[in-house]
Amino acid sequence: MASNGNGHSNGHSNGNVPTQQWAAVAESEGAPIKYKQIPVPKPGPDEVLVNIKYSGVCHTDWHMKQGDWPLKASKFPLVGGHEGAGVVVARGALVKDVEIGEHVGVKWINGSCLDCQFCQASDEQLCQKAICSGAHVDGTFQQYCIAQAAHVARIPKDVDMAAISPVLCAGITVYKGLKESGAKPGQTVAIVGAGGGLGSMAVQYAKAMGLRVIAIDAGDDKREATKKLGAESFVDFSKSKDVVADVQAATEDGLGPHAVLLVAVSERPFQQAAEYVRPKGTVVCIGLPADAYLKAPVFQTVARMVTIRGSYVGNRRDSAEAIDFFRRGLIQIPYKVVPLSELEDVYQKMIKGQISGRYVLDMDK
Amino acid sequence: MASNGNGHSNGHSNGNVPTQQWAAVAESEGAPIKYKQIPVPKPGPDEVLVNIKYSGVCHTDWHMKQGDWPLKASKFPLVGGHEGAGVVVARGALVKDVEIGEHVGVKWINGSCLDCQFCQASDEQLCQKAICSGAHVDGTFQQYCIAQAAHVARIPKDVDMAAISPVLCAGITVYKGLKESGAKPGQTVAIVGAGGGLGSMAVQYAKAMGLRVIAIDAGDDKREATKKLGAESFVDFSKSKDVVADVQAATEDGLGPHAVLLVAVSERPFQQAAEYVRPKGTVVCIGLPADAYLKAPVFQTVARMVTIRGSYVGNRRDSAEAIDFFRRGLIQIPYKVVPLSELEDVYQKMIKGQISGRYVLDMDK
Amino acid sequence: MASNGNGHSNGHSNGNVPTQQWAAVAESEGAPIKYKQIPVPKPGPDEVLVNIKYSGVCHTDWHMKQGDWPLKASKFPLVGGHEGAGVVVARGALVKDVEIGEHVGVKWINGSCLDCQFCQASDEQLCQKAICSGAHVDGTFQQYCIAQAAHVARIPKDVDMAAISPVLCAGITVYKGLKESGAKPGQTVAIVGAGGGLGSMAVQYAKAMGLRVIAIDAGDDKREATKKLGAESFVDFSKSKDVVADVQAATEDGLGPHAVLLVAVSERPFQQAAEYVRPKGTVVCIGLPADAYLKAPVFQTVARMVTIRGSYVGNRRDSAEAIDFFRRGLIQIPYKVVPLSELEDVYQKMIKGQISGRYVLDMDK
Amino acid sequence: MASNGNGHSNGHSNGNVPTQQWAAVAESEGAPIKYKQIPVPKPGPDEVLVNIKYSGVCHTDWHMKQGDWPLKASKFPLVGGHEGAGVVVARGALVKDVEIGEHVGVKWINGSCLDCQFCQASDEQLCQKAICSGAHVDGTFQQYCIAQAAHVARIPKDVDMAAISPVLCAGITVYKGLKESGAKPGQTVAIVGAGGGLGSMAVQYAKAMGLRVIAIDAGDDKREATKKLGAESFVDFSKSKDVVADVQAATEDGLGPHAVLLVAVSERPFQQAAEYVRPKGTVVCIGLPADAYLKAPVFQTVARMVTIRGSYVGNRRDSAEAIDFFRRGLIQIPYKVVPLSELEDVYQKMIKGQISGRYVLDMDK
Repeated sequence: MASNGNGHSNGHSNGNVPTQQWAAVAESEGAPIKYKQIPVPKPGPDEVLVNIKYSGVCHTDWHMKQGDWPLKASKFPLVGGHEGAGVVVARGALVKDVEIGEHVGVKWINGSCLDCQFCQASDEQLCQKAICSGAHVDGTFQQYCIAQAAHVARIPKDVDMAAISPVLCAGITVYKGLKESGAKPGQTVAIVGAGGGLGSMAVQYAKAMGLRVIAIDAGDDKREATKKLGAESFVDFSKSKDVVADVQAATEDGLGPHAVLLVAVSERPFQQAAEYVRPKGTVVCIGLPADAYLKAPVFQTVARMVTIRGSYVGNRRDSAEAIDFFRRGLIQIPYKVVPLSELEDVYQKMIKGQISGRYVLDMDK
Repeated sequence: MASNGNGHSNGHSNGNVPTQQWAAVAESEGAPIKYKQIPVPKPGPDEVLVNIKYSGVCHTDWHMKQGDWPLKASKFPLVGGHEGAGVVVARGALVKDVEIGEHVGVKWINGSCLDCQFCQASDEQLCQKAICSGAHVDGTFQQYCIAQAAHVARIPKDVDMAAISPVLCAGITVYKGLKESGAKPGQTVAIVGAGGGLGSMAVQYAKAMGLRVIAIDAGDDKREATKKLGAESFVDFSKSKDVVADVQAATEDGLGPHAVLLVAVSERPFQQAAEYVRPKGTVVCIGLPADAYLKAPVFQTVARMVTIRGSYVGNRRDSAEAIDFFRRGLIQIPYKVVPLSELEDVYQKMIKGQISGRYVLDMDK
Repeated sequence: MASNGNGHSNGHSNGNVPTQQWAAVAESEGAPIKYKQIPVPKPGPDEVLVNIKYSGVCHTDWHMKQGDWPLKASKFPLVGGHEGAGVVVARGALVKDVEIGEHVGVKWINGSCLDCQFCQASDEQLCQKAICSGAHVDGTFQQYCIAQAAHVARIPKDVDMAAISPVLCAGITVYKGLKESGAKPGQTVAIVGAGGGLGSMAVQYAKAMGLRVIAIDAGDDKREATKKLGAESFVDFSKSKDVVADVQAATEDGLGPHAVLLVAVSERPFQQAAEYVRPKGTVVCIGLPADAYLKAPVFQTVARMVTIRGSYVGNRRDSAEAIDFFRRGLIQIPYKVVPLSELEDVYQKMIKGQISGRYVLDMDK
Repeated sequence: MASNGNGHSNGHSNGNVPTQQWAAVAESEGAPIKYKQIPVPKPGPDEVLVNIKYSGVCHTDWHMKQGDWPLKASKFPLVGGHEGAGVVVARGALVKDVEIGEHVGVKWINGSCLDCQFCQASDEQLCQKAICSGAHVDGTFQQYCIAQAAHVARIPKDVDMAAISPVLCAGITVYKGLKESGAKPGQTVAIVGAGGGLGSMAVQYAKAMGLRVIAIDAGDDKREATKKLGAESFVDFSKSKDVVADVQAATEDGLGPHAVLLVAVSERPFQQAAEYVRPKGTVVCIGLPADAYLKAPVFQTVARMVTIRGSYVGNRRDSAEAIDFFRRGLIQIPYKVVPLSELEDVYQKMIKGQISGRYVLDMDK
């Protein structure tokens, strides 16, 4: 796990890699972000060095910095970030399949052993030795970031790197969740929290996958927004007197959606989801609230043969597929670009709940 | 739903069907069982009349009689029973595929519409119009019982009818649960409650399916019994200081079983199961406790990609397969035969927890 | 099998069913079609009588009449037809789930036993006792047609009955073929014969299922037509010097489509398909040429892990889903309505290869 | 592809690796095997050096040496062999998960890119850059062999290395084929060539997976042998007047096996298999005859919804699972140990068809 960043490369680089770079650093757990210069790391034999151009900001980054999650960062000072898009500028001696100059994404899963039973089964995110960007190694809130070559996501050159950066965690996660739901083209999926950052992407991925969407969120703005993105109906949980009945009524036969995607899981929506999902349907949880419990009545879960399933980011294949949907113009993500130096401001807005859509950091500012 | 038993058959019978029969009747909700004579019903056009020889007794029968479950009997006086094995003695005019003289089983699912989206997808147990034996229509605690021809289970003639009767609900249910677990031959399944009636069958079905079994139960008797049936290891939850750790230690790589079958669900074992199951593993609930909730930490469920799934009896194909495993001699069920007239005694033992193994009623006594 | 049409119903009707009707009858194998009056049949207890409004004409109808297929009609005089849309006007005593006045479709699978291992597993089309419309019983080329209630397809009342009739065989078949291909949203399917009647539907179903389409056919007209329907690329097999190379080149990574749907199978396209499909891809055959053999090199099939699969019409669930895609406006079918009395003319055009699109018969003319 | 064997390791070794070793070398295509001394190679950074103790001999080795297959060796002089079991004696600097002293197997897939779409989806055997032992790099017919660390199979230390060596190709291949067949516990699989080397293993794997086996081969010796291994019935294709009918009759309902495993594919058995397999069944081809074609009637393949599928060796997970079944004592392989120096004799016996069971070479002789 510690090889990352300690490389003594006999590999190749494009010759223009500086020795110092700007980064957004958390000096210690809970400390505010400091925008400062730090050394540029060198890739190990199976790693690449990526000149990050843009990086999305995710709630997880905040949790890593704060140390308030079950999963904690293993190093401080820490550079966070795991939605970074950039250009490969150097690679280790063993790297054959990633070229200098390629556009790539650095994801939450920075590297994995590629050899355990989970890696062998394409479940790298479950690798017990998985290394996470901005948690176990420095992430994408810096100009030059290291990642295992086999784990960077390929980004076609005609794709806008700022626009795609939120796909690298949020997009992959909702896409994988939809795959895990087992919902088939023509079937209906309810998306709880459809109006938020992840939810908005989920609505579009669902539509691109041939699914029909019931958007669940609060407020007329979200109603309008989700309809525009392709949702066929909307249930306003803040106004509904009976969410279970209203969601089921949104399907033509009244039996409820074939699947539910819980983007923002708290206990109440979870329990409702298990009730309104169609018999033999699947409720997928992708949110990671620290202390919440999922809860459902055993009798109804059994008698209705309901499946409840956790889905966690995605593997490399999921990532490539999620990017491909984006590249084909099927996913529009509202985002706002701010300089890397303003990360602390973004965090302040985040904890005040003032963010809608995604913030993307520009590394060159 | 009410057509059952009201037939005015133009069908055929073997000519020896009496007009009166002995039955075990609950005159009203909660009333004790009365052993008495009642009329023999006539099958409708798509139904058969089965001369029940033996019937297993299931906890569900007690709950139907008592009315203490979310699912309630829809008729009283009620004849319970849904694990009945017998001989077809009459059939309706439309019935072509079941012969007079065939040995058949009458299951919990007595009939279904065969036409809704669930029936069309082989999920008859989820049919909104499913008719349950001993709940919506009179069941197998009588000498002559009606069932929809398309729903009776075929029993080969070389099979002992007393011995197979518990397969018709308990066997099907655990077999289906194992199928729903997704566990593949060579993988490991933990069975919680392995020493009980259902659990003992589950251990044997699992083994016959090429699975390796960790038996979880309490006491050295259960340890011995489950080993004999084929379990490779045993965790005594009454003595274990850390059930999660002990179950995981029972797998060679310490990562836990690929699946868990919860035969007797109460909240605590459920939560433990979600913790000790292998990442990407599946926890299957088949027990139907009235008021219990399943509960699991969202964070771990998501990050470990755990699936929790309810499984409810089985469809007709599952039933045929479960019977076939029995027929091949792979499933041994300890049972005790008592006369139909003693059903009330069996219930008394049941509520006092004095039953191990299965009670089977002999209809001719 | 012979019960169909011999009913002595105690059921219900709308009171306006005549005793005589117009039908298109083949008096004997190979004889030309005679437009004549015949008696209106009566539904059996589990059947419905459908007042057919429109019926599509399929190549299979011609083969049934001619007796030149491995599967032969079992009765003459024979009324063909198995793409009929109409209104239920009478039903047998046992029928509870289909209402008088409902709009329904009569499909190739007119009825099945609903009880064998195939029916139990939702593979009714494989039922050894399946009854086929226009082959084992009279079909939809008559004003009043009988079908097993559990097998009629439900048609929502806002759907045009002439327009949907070709979905009832052609649409279901291509939709099922696409499902059997295993291709997932975002993946690519090549459709061989994309410009024909079935092919055009296949292109649209594929698109609605989130798939990307390579259309394979001959001529610039087909190129234009399939692009309009949503195909992303076109390979003209009549002009291509290397079909295998050209189809693979139509995928971005050059590795070929994930699946191939062979709408019109002859030996040559089959062998090519097994070569250009992506490793681990699936070639689905849905065409039913009488004497053709599928042929592929064992070495390449094994080393590339190719799957070749036959797909035959669809089950009741597939049918409902195929209709739902149509109802949602996602499938446009070019068709031409002619009077029932002109069926023989349609056949003559068919055998001369003069038909593009689908012919639909109007039963009231 | 060429990195293998050219390593300049900064890794570790057990200190006792010699510089010269004995090997069985084919100096050029078609030349006889020469037993001679050659240098011991050094592992690259992601490779291990394995002191091979035993290696099975496979027909493929002969084909590689002779150059008479579509897939040809890419180097000469060539050391063949791809069923080698031994001890890790050195490893490259990047290797963390394989220890010096571990027992491992070197398989046909010596290495792959671990990064392409196929590797990402756990289909390493389809990797376009896959390196095969004894074809693209020197294989296991030498005392010291190199392999990519992520691709060596782990062998528990209590397993006999001579006995397990045939599992490393033959075992994995038949086990994977059975998985790809889709046959479920309790279902029946016909194994064509059940009495041969691969077939004998297939019978045992099938039984361990809960499957029922129809063995198909010729002669009473094979009949006895396959029964002993667990086959429930036997069809002697050399005596049968109607193989299709006889195989179907070997299933209780006469509908044929759910799957067929073609261990030795020639055209005739293939075509028969597509005929006697149960409707919706699967025919799996694992043999790799150079010029054979698979052939099946389109009409029957479609109308019976038959699947024909090629299966090629197995991935790393399949390998680990196949080894685990062996370790548990469920697979007995008859083999004969001869010195490495006698490889040419083994080949001579092989081409004369004088081998039954597996030959295993002892590297220390």
